[in-house]
Amino acid sequence: MVREQITALRKEMEKANITAYMVPTSDFHGSEYVGEYFQGRAFLSGFTGSAGTLVVTQEMAGLWTDGRYFLQAAEQLKDTGIDLFRLDQEGVPNVKEFLAETLKPGERLGFDGRVVYAREAEELSQKLEKKGVSICYQMDLVDLVWDNRPPLSKKAVMILDVQYAGESRESKIEKIRQKMKQAGADLFLLTSLDDIAWLLNIRGNDVKCNPVVLSYLAMMEDQVLLFANREAFSEEIEEELKQAGVFLRDYQEFYSYIQKIPEDTKVCLDKRKVNYTIVKSLSGRVELVNQTNLTLLPKAVKNQTEMERIREAHRKDGAAVVRFIYWLKTRAAKEKITELSAAVKLEEFRGAQKHYMGPSFTPIIGYQAHGAIIHYSATEESNCQLKPEGLVLLDTGGQYLEGTTDITRTVALGPVTEEEKMYFTLVLKGNLNLSAAKFLYGCRGINLDYLARAPLWERGLDYPHGTGHGVGFFLNVHEAPNGFRYQWIPERGESAVLEEGMLTSNEPGFYLEGKFGIRHENLMLCVKDEKNAYGQFMRFDTVTLVPFDLDAIAKELLSEREKRVLNQYHKRVYQTIAPALEGEVKSWLKEATREI
Amino acid sequence: MVREQITALRKEMEKANITAYMVPTSDFHGSEYVGEYFQGRAFLSGFTGSAGTLVVTQEMAGLWTDGRYFLQAAEQLKDTGIDLFRLDQEGVPNVKEFLAETLKPGERLGFDGRVVYAREAEELSQKLEKKGVSICYQMDLVDLVWDNRPPLSKKAVMILDVQYAGESRESKIEKIRQKMKQAGADLFLLTSLDDIAWLLNIRGNDVKCNPVVLSYLAMMEDQVLLFANREAFSEEIEEELKQAGVFLRDYQEFYSYIQKIPEDTKVCLDKRKVNYTIVKSLSGRVELVNQTNLTLLPKAVKNQTEMERIREAHRKDGAAVVRFIYWLKTRAAKEKITELSAAVKLEEFRGAQKHYMGPSFTPIIGYQAHGAIIHYSATEESNCQLKPEGLVLLDTGGQYLEGTTDITRTVALGPVTEEEKMYFTLVLKGNLNLSAAKFLYGCRGINLDYLARAPLWERGLDYPHGTGHGVGFFLNVHEAPNGFRYQWIPERGESAVLEEGMLTSNEPGFYLEGKFGIRHENLMLCVKDEKNAYGQFMRFDTVTLVPFDLDAIAKELLSEREKRVLNQYHKRVYQTIAPALEGEVKSWLKEATREI
Repeated sequence: MVREQITALRKEMEKANITAYMVPTSDFHGSEYVGEYFQGRAFLSGFTGSAGTLVVTQEMAGLWTDGRYFLQAAEQLKDTGIDLFRLDQEGVPNVKEFLAETLKPGERLGFDGRVVYAREAEELSQKLEKKGVSICYQMDLVDLVWDNRPPLSKKAVMILDVQYAGESRESKIEKIRQKMKQAGADLFLLTSLDDIAWLLNIRGNDVKCNPVVLSYLAMMEDQVLLFANREAFSEEIEEELKQAGVFLRDYQEFYSYIQKIPEDTKVCLDKRKVNYTIVKSLSGRVELVNQTNLTLLPKAVKNQTEMERIREAHRKDGAAVVRFIYWLKTRAAKEKITELSAAVKLEEFRGAQKHYMGPSFTPIIGYQAHGAIIHYSATEESNCQLKPEGLVLLDTGGQYLEGTTDITRTVALGPVTEEEKMYFTLVLKGNLNLSAAKFLYGCRGINLDYLARAPLWERGLDYPHGTGHGVGFFLNVHEAPNGFRYQWIPERGESAVLEEGMLTSNEPGFYLEGKFGIRHENLMLCVKDEKNAYGQFMRFDTVTLVPFDLDAIAKELLSEREKRVLNQYHKRVYQTIAPALEGEVKSWLKEATREI
Repeated sequence: MVREQITALRKEMEKANITAYMVPTSDFHGSEYVGEYFQGRAFLSGFTGSAGTLVVTQEMAGLWTDGRYFLQAAEQLKDTGIDLFRLDQEGVPNVKEFLAETLKPGERLGFDGRVVYAREAEELSQKLEKKGVSICYQMDLVDLVWDNRPPLSKKAVMILDVQYAGESRESKIEKIRQKMKQAGADLFLLTSLDDIAWLLNIRGNDVKCNPVVLSYLAMMEDQVLLFANREAFSEEIEEELKQAGVFLRDYQEFYSYIQKIPEDTKVCLDKRKVNYTIVKSLSGRVELVNQTNLTLLPKAVKNQTEMERIREAHRKDGAAVVRFIYWLKTRAAKEKITELSAAVKLEEFRGAQKHYMGPSFTPIIGYQAHGAIIHYSATEESNCQLKPEGLVLLDTGGQYLEGTTDITRTVALGPVTEEEKMYFTLVLKGNLNLSAAKFLYGCRGINLDYLARAPLWERGLDYPHGTGHGVGFFLNVHEAPNGFRYQWIPERGESAVLEEGMLTSNEPGFYLEGKFGIRHENLMLCVKDEKNAYGQFMRFDTVTLVPFDLDAIAKELLSEREKRVLNQYHKRVYQTIAPALEGEVKSWLKEATREI
């Protein structure tokens, strides 16, 4: 039995004379998470994970996804006629390889060029055109078969006041214009949503958990055009933007606009961030200056105001999470708490904080064995009760006007085994050592990742994910170009030199399948330390303020230095968070941050 | 007063209608150290340091060199009419910038394209041709003014038996031919001397301390041509090479040979390693496949035989250096020993070892303040007496049939200050921690450099050099592509993934100008550790076997783990080296390797 959506798609493919049609998971802006309008792959395949690519021919249908989703995808694809292709498994071709092997000279591959990065599509088309396969990139066949497709999101846009943003949009625009000139460009096309929101000091709600505004931006020497859903902007906001030389245009107008860009224009854009349709409609006609988005670094390097605000956000978030952990540790024995109900409760605690704007990502609350599933998110089916024993992994975050938080704590709900304590402590050692690094300016995440992994590596253990990612300011919880990873993979956008003001997560972990998962995650601001004849030294200022669970620590595994770092951190947690607390929870925090 | 060599050069420049003439320090093969024939820059300028570039116009003459040589160059350039340009100092243009600023449209820059890397010259010529300056790269004006120019070296060539090399030249050639085919090339041009020596299992003596043979190599599908000085080859050796399909041609024939390469040939070469004249005579005429030398990685990854031989070389070298340090520590109080005479003595100890072939670089023996001059090499003028007090830095190495050694020890000749002990110990901590690293396959030097620097960085200190470089097998003491450095500078050729069999130095240091210098250097083989579900773990096997001077250690600064690593190392030193010693020196080694 073949899923009816696939059958419908095949009919449209036949009409359009398309041999294979590809549906990745993206929007027109290359967003990591996408709005409902862009969930075409989920609609067609029935697989609802956050990452995956569907390829359909008349003979077969296949869905490619990664290790996080093998179980879920296998389940959801049952009886759909869609084969599961497990990425990075031996002998499994990736999408490009599959297409190159399958398609024959004269055949045609179709996709919507607006949902594929320019550089990726260029690589794919080079590979296929060499084989005589043609590329039809202007076909949104999904739209033809999706009857009740949700509309494009047009949530109300808000202004982020300069008291939070720390720099006016006029000033930001001026700086980017100067960079534009340095690059010798007359026009800068910016289509990544968090960059646009940062540049204009606006926020929206068009992608779940990501406070961005669905829009394209074109910057010229004398004006900025913002292509967005005009209904999302109040008159006041439209007027305020106009004052800064930013003029609204309809979202749908963008592609006809770029077709009219004069031929002698030098257009600056980042082929790794803009979509293929944009580049195809420009290349050969105007001169393209392909370089990293001019906004990338200034967005990542938080200014002094943002840094202060981030600390403020984490004081509020810390108080909420401390209340939550206290509640969890004291109530799990007394009432029925599940993974899902715990998430609701945490949202309550966060919601009570001033300027709380919602979660920064879907909470990961994984009890015992569920904690070992790295991207676990409880469903009605998987949801289980938290009992007064073992470990629960809590990876959650909030959006505040003052910034974005992302914290993981692993909490003992009752007795824990010696084994659990040992791994808990090994992971903690890594977190503490990375947090205490002092290093010369010029270091990147790759220089320091070893600090977080060494306690595990020394014992022949590891965790199968990066140690940290950049974090936005009341924006996306994953932000380039900073991060911690031991492999050199520049295209992941994590390998930049660490600059003062960069905000990065520090989140080593350890996972035993079927048993438990441990992760300890704090956010750290990179700040300047002493400057002397040897150069500018840098260090981290940990902004997340919630105790690590002393009930799960094997104290004897910590070095004297690690104990000192932990005790100093806990002292600071108490001093900073206690004033916001009262009664039992305050006493509990005192105890939870005691010196060891 | 202008140096007469410069005046003579200016006359030749005038005849040739050359506005500016550039003389770098290199040979036709891009060697780091060059033979006497190639010391034109020193001949012209009088500056004898190992690195520098001379630029002469009718109006000025300038010598560019780096921080190692500022003092020496200032001294040697006095009253020559040559200005010193201190590289990397604020406001000082580099050679390229200077030429781009100075030369005007229509003017002509001359140099010998055979002594400039193709990629560098391409960058320079692009920059200048944009300005209307023409490039004359086929002019060896140095030759015209250098009356008694030494001849090209033609030292006797020897075969390195397969019992040392571990792989026959036939097998190596076959492997490189396969890579050549994979690269789609018909011809592979190899001009770097250590790569040629490695590939053919030959050694020579054409560059001081570097057992290489002055030659160019062209590999085709059916034969290999070796362009070299035929007098350097015995009939037996020529015959042996012929057996492997390697045919001798005259060294001077190379450039006429490449001009005759047929037009439909695909030529593989590395523009960062071959010279500009080669690329100019080929490009546009044949198809160039520019990629990293096919021999680079197989040369760096030592085979099992080489690894065993390297350990053997270090046992012999260790015994020699132990005898030397014992002699130094016991005799400095009793007889007159100088930096220069100590070097002679060390050479005696090494010379007594079987298969010793000579030093692998000019010894650095720096007493007290001289130890702080990182590339110090004693001269008759600077030479000073070693007294029974303070620290002497000994950075030396040997060539053996079984491999190349490179070791630095910092030795207390008598009482040392608390300050000296502290820094001695901080540097030692870095060396020990790096040596004990265990890491997942995929790490590069950049991942681990922090381990060597952390004890200094934590105190706001640093050393101004890399932590380690690759080392050849009875070849060049500096070898790409492995090394330890915290900056990401791929063009330095130190950033490769660490593979089993790579040999790398571990040499953190600390230098207080005018007081003392400390460096602790061991060579380490990268080897496999356990392989499990998390991947292939790697570690280092330290092959250098000489104690660190316990007389200079501040034991209280070492962690328990560091003490354990040190004690285990010293135990291994004694067990391995003692059997080669006797009497007092053996008893001394027992004491020098005692547990602390």
